[in-house]
Amino acid sequence: MAQLQRIAIAPSQFQKEQIILTQEQQHYLVRVLRLRNGDRFIAMDGLGKWWIAQLQGTQAQVLEPLEVKTELPVSINLIVALPKGNAFDEVVRCCTELGVGVIAPVISDRTLLNPSPQKLERWRRIAQEAAEQSERLFVPTILEPVGFSSSLVDFQRSTNQQYICEARGNYPHLRDCLRDKGEMTITIAIGPEGGWTQEEVECAIAANFQPVSLGRRILRTVTAPIVALSIVAAELESK
Amino acid sequence: MAQLQRIAIAPSQFQKEQIILTQEQQHYLVRVLRLRNGDRFIAMDGLGKWWIAQLQGTQAQVLEPLEVKTELPVSINLIVALPKGNAFDEVVRCCTELGVGVIAPVISDRTLLNPSPQKLERWRRIAQEAAEQSERLFVPTILEPVGFSSSLVDFQRSTNQQYICEARGNYPHLRDCLRDKGEMTITIAIGPEGGWTQEEVECAIAANFQPVSLGRRILRTVTAPIVALSIVAAELESK
Repeated sequence: MAQLQRIAIAPSQFQKEQIILTQEQQHYLVRVLRLRNGDRFIAMDGLGKWWIAQLQGTQAQVLEPLEVKTELPVSINLIVALPKGNAFDEVVRCCTELGVGVIAPVISDRTLLNPSPQKLERWRRIAQEAAEQSERLFVPTILEPVGFSSSLVDFQRSTNQQYICEARGNYPHLRDCLRDKGEMTITIAIGPEGGWTQEEVECAIAANFQPVSLGRRILRTVTAPIVALSIVAAELESK
Repeated sequence: MAQLQRIAIAPSQFQKEQIILTQEQQHYLVRVLRLRNGDRFIAMDGLGKWWIAQLQGTQAQVLEPLEVKTELPVSINLIVALPKGNAFDEVVRCCTELGVGVIAPVISDRTLLNPSPQKLERWRRIAQEAAEQSERLFVPTILEPVGFSSSLVDFQRSTNQQYICEARGNYPHLRDCLRDKGEMTITIAIGPEGGWTQEEVECAIAANFQPVSLGRRILRTVTAPIVALSIVAAELESK
């Protein structure tokens, strides 16, 4: 199974067999996903067409088209505050089944512990297994844990729609906020046990994240990402 | 926290302080939920109004109205084929967080083991804890495990919309099949590892269950109920 990372490309960026990358996309590929010149990645147009491409500086060479049936038509990034114990294993497993593109574990103000480097390897192995079991074509990318605010910066510039889920505070429902299906990249941030701090929510709002609710009940950090992804995937895969 | 069981009642059934129960509702309260004369239950009108009522033969006495903020406006029953090991614990925990009304564990053709009586106690304890944690007003009812076909009979007559989720077979998406929000009780059946057998799907169709898909990927038995509930809850709680 391909371990390739994915990025959404607007049709206007395709010129002959080349993709002209925007500055935001270069930042995302090189700084966030850590790709180097010559590395391959998946370019998707958000309308169901997929290609393998190869990074070449500010451009990419289109190598071949792909036939994709079990992947979501857009790329969904999840920023998840690390929960206690081994609970993140379950987040990785379920969200992989549901079609996530990138999972970014983050340290938030209320995160209790810093994960060991072995954890990252473990999560990547779980993602690989879950991708195979759910018959996906790609394995989602699990990023190295960083602080919440630097994760906001990474995703702010490279995605089209950004949401931060917050149980308290009477925010509109995620489903009512999702915009046109044509948009290509969605980032959703899910808080830790005890929720985000007020400062974190304000920081996210400043980075163009819209605060949303996932319903009237309080969800655990393990359940919330599954619920968010289920809502977005159903919106994308239904008529 | 109230351990009361819930049933949806049409406005026309309220007469003064009495509820005139249909035969189906009597069957459901007495045979499925095992209530006796004098027992209390929750009557809900599917439009957000709730009352405590007391069973009196073919009728029920309305005792008092309830203020409810964190419950779904309709009653959702989940029929779930028992997965291997302790995986059902997680189903009970997550689905309780998401607002389920009744969980009916069933033995299907591909179910590997019969649960011990201790399991049922354990699931009810988990439901109690999860209901408190998610700030629900009610604890969902966990029924005793029965065979799939007798569960079909129990729910067929007492609910308004019935769905059976099946990954293989190109069925329409659950979200596209959900009918008017005004309907009051929804039953969703989720299969075991390996899916339902063809006979089980046909048996469910004969009992007025509509086969639906939860998306293009293969979900585990643990993930599928969470996804189904997330989709239905978002439909009910968004505009």
